[in-house]
Amino acid sequence: MEETPTTRMETFTDGVFAIAATLLILEIGIDTAHTRDLGSALLHLWPSYLAYVTSFITIGIIWMNHHTCVETMVRVDRTFLFLNLLLLLTVSFLPFPTRLVAEYLHRPDEQAAVYAYAATFVVMAVIYNVWWRYASTGRRLIGQTVPESRIIAINRAFNPGVPIYALTLLIAVFSPIASVFLTFAIAAFYLPSAALFER
Amino acid sequence: MEETPTTRMETFTDGVFAIAATLLILEIGIDTAHTRDLGSALLHLWPSYLAYVTSFITIGIIWMNHHTCVETMVRVDRTFLFLNLLLLLTVSFLPFPTRLVAEYLHRPDEQAAVYAYAATFVVMAVIYNVWWRYASTGRRLIGQTVPESRIIAINRAFNPGVPIYALTLLIAVFSPIASVFLTFAIAAFYLPSAALFER
Amino acid sequence: MEETPTTRMETFTDGVFAIAATLLILEIGIDTAHTRDLGSALLHLWPSYLAYVTSFITIGIIWMNHHTCVETMVRVDRTFLFLNLLLLLTVSFLPFPTRLVAEYLHRPDEQAAVYAYAATFVVMAVIYNVWWRYASTGRRLIGQTVPESRIIAINRAFNPGVPIYALTLLIAVFSPIASVFLTFAIAAFYLPSAALFER
Amino acid sequence: MEETPTTRMETFTDGVFAIAATLLILEIGIDTAHTRDLGSALLHLWPSYLAYVTSFITIGIIWMNHHTCVETMVRVDRTFLFLNLLLLLTVSFLPFPTRLVAEYLHRPDEQAAVYAYAATFVVMAVIYNVWWRYASTGRRLIGQTVPESRIIAINRAFNPGVPIYALTLLIAVFSPIASVFLTFAIAAFYLPSAALFER
Repeated sequence: MEETPTTRMETFTDGVFAIAATLLILEIGIDTAHTRDLGSALLHLWPSYLAYVTSFITIGIIWMNHHTCVETMVRVDRTFLFLNLLLLLTVSFLPFPTRLVAEYLHRPDEQAAVYAYAATFVVMAVIYNVWWRYASTGRRLIGQTVPESRIIAINRAFNPGVPIYALTLLIAVFSPIASVFLTFAIAAFYLPSAALFER
Repeated sequence: MEETPTTRMETFTDGVFAIAATLLILEIGIDTAHTRDLGSALLHLWPSYLAYVTSFITIGIIWMNHHTCVETMVRVDRTFLFLNLLLLLTVSFLPFPTRLVAEYLHRPDEQAAVYAYAATFVVMAVIYNVWWRYASTGRRLIGQTVPESRIIAINRAFNPGVPIYALTLLIAVFSPIASVFLTFAIAAFYLPSAALFER
Repeated sequence: MEETPTTRMETFTDGVFAIAATLLILEIGIDTAHTRDLGSALLHLWPSYLAYVTSFITIGIIWMNHHTCVETMVRVDRTFLFLNLLLLLTVSFLPFPTRLVAEYLHRPDEQAAVYAYAATFVVMAVIYNVWWRYASTGRRLIGQTVPESRIIAINRAFNPGVPIYALTLLIAVFSPIASVFLTFAIAAFYLPSAALFER
Repeated sequence: MEETPTTRMETFTDGVFAIAATLLILEIGIDTAHTRDLGSALLHLWPSYLAYVTSFITIGIIWMNHHTCVETMVRVDRTFLFLNLLLLLTVSFLPFPTRLVAEYLHRPDEQAAVYAYAATFVVMAVIYNVWWRYASTGRRLIGQTVPESRIIAINRAFNPGVPIYALTLLIAVFSPIASVFLTFAIAAFYLPSAALFER
């Protein structure tokens, strides 16, 4: 087989990212049995739309960065594959807290829902960092032809990930809604500019 | 890695299109707890079948055209990838308004449901146009070997997209059901004939 | 791009087949709110298991035959891609009648559910036949190096499809449960032996 | 077509594994209509998280081992493809017993739920063993260049599969919760170390 270990890993990874993103829409619901005015019900769903867009763009950009990182690698090992599986597990989990935000934002229990949402992003950022640090420390899995400057640039792009999502968790203590808007802003403005998919 | 930036983008895109189309069926439901005569209940589900077929064919043809467009490109940049992500976000969103039409067509709140459905198609057509115009203007991402006549042909195929879906939105003001039938007709008769997948 | 028109079509097709098969499990449900004895409830779910297994194996084998057919082709045209889209539309639809059988078999409304199930397979078989006849008639899309004996062998494998599923529909008039068991038998015994995936 | 029979099989297999893993999250639910304190409700969901993580990691590692096995093969035959389909059928079924464990663990009916969960893993392990034994016995489908030591190593990795999952089923007789924790431990500690994805 002409297949390399990295492409083998990428196939499963690609599938999980694309499916997790597309499943998000299933979490947006209207309780049709108890809806009297559909028009205003659709407008009052704005927390659902916000949560959907935020999670979708975040998954999309993380996926693209994932590919950029993997392109610097020539091999994978058992530990790395397991870290990758943990990363996918967190990405696949995202539809669940997304639904919590969609259903509870702007309602009495919003704080617990946003805690769950922000905490998921923190865990994802931590695992993603560990995943990259494992591969890049001592150039463990990195190809010889990849310039050191490229590794340093990726390191720099990874640095703010954990602090910025920790901040969304902290902000949720004071204002759940501000926390979600910050998560959206990260996805819409910060992540694209910091994204590694530039060539 | 032998991978090019466009194939990287295409993998995620392929997944999202195929999943969004296949998830549509999950939105067709029968409230089994309150169904007394299944046979007639299945016949009364025709708005669901109509919405399902319309959305499925539209996604399928947009996907094929997407491939045709990408085949003319030799590279992608950050902005284009973000536009592509917005396009996928809209395609993935489609199951939600499809369910609204499936549940509300021919019922009291049908107008709001059809507004949401038609508006989603308008937004999709706008983003799809911006996506293509960004790539093709000044041949920004287009390969040198691609003849100008091919770009012009694709431009021509894109031109009617936004106006025709804007028309379905306008018609929904007067007759929601006529709007959905027009969207179906576009998917079944107009899109295939205008499709870019001819060789 | 090194991509051929047939691989372009296959990517979307692969995705839809795999997703449709995997979504089937979502249709198996236990109404946890009203279940008192889970053990016996799980045993009484046998129509769900039967419907799940039948639909899953049928999709899997149709998918493998699809690949075998496409391998004989060197090009695709607009009409063929549209026929392929109609085939995928029917395959994606299958989870819906599968759920109907899962919920209604061995209950009062079973006949309507099994009519819907059998009718879906008939439509699928008809479209699949038209899809192949379109490609193979006059060797329209067939590669020059493919021996005529191969085309004849595939033709022969396609011949019983429509009659055999029409028979399941007919049998549903007299015994819905016998109809489902016949559909299962086709998937478990007939389809694998007639399958085109032998080399 | 440059495609080999094994890649043809792998595409469908990749899709089903990735989708089955990602669908798992849809089975974790909170009955939002009857939840008064979301925070404590989320903490009480720990059986759901346990079931989700266990099933996800198991699917991920089985998938990677699947690839490693297929890499030793140069061809597939009809029987093998059918065995592969049965394996996928079992993997796709996993979200159902996962939901049962998620909903019933630590509740009155937990034993039946855990029986279903453990039994599914036993069936999966049996089919997976048959699948590999069929391919490797007499090197039926194995490539000539693959050293016998590699086959023996894979055989050795397969040996404990059925007994260890049979043990989880046995333990469920005495303690359902211990059975689930053992299944988790297998996924988190045993499977990664026994995994075939080491190079």
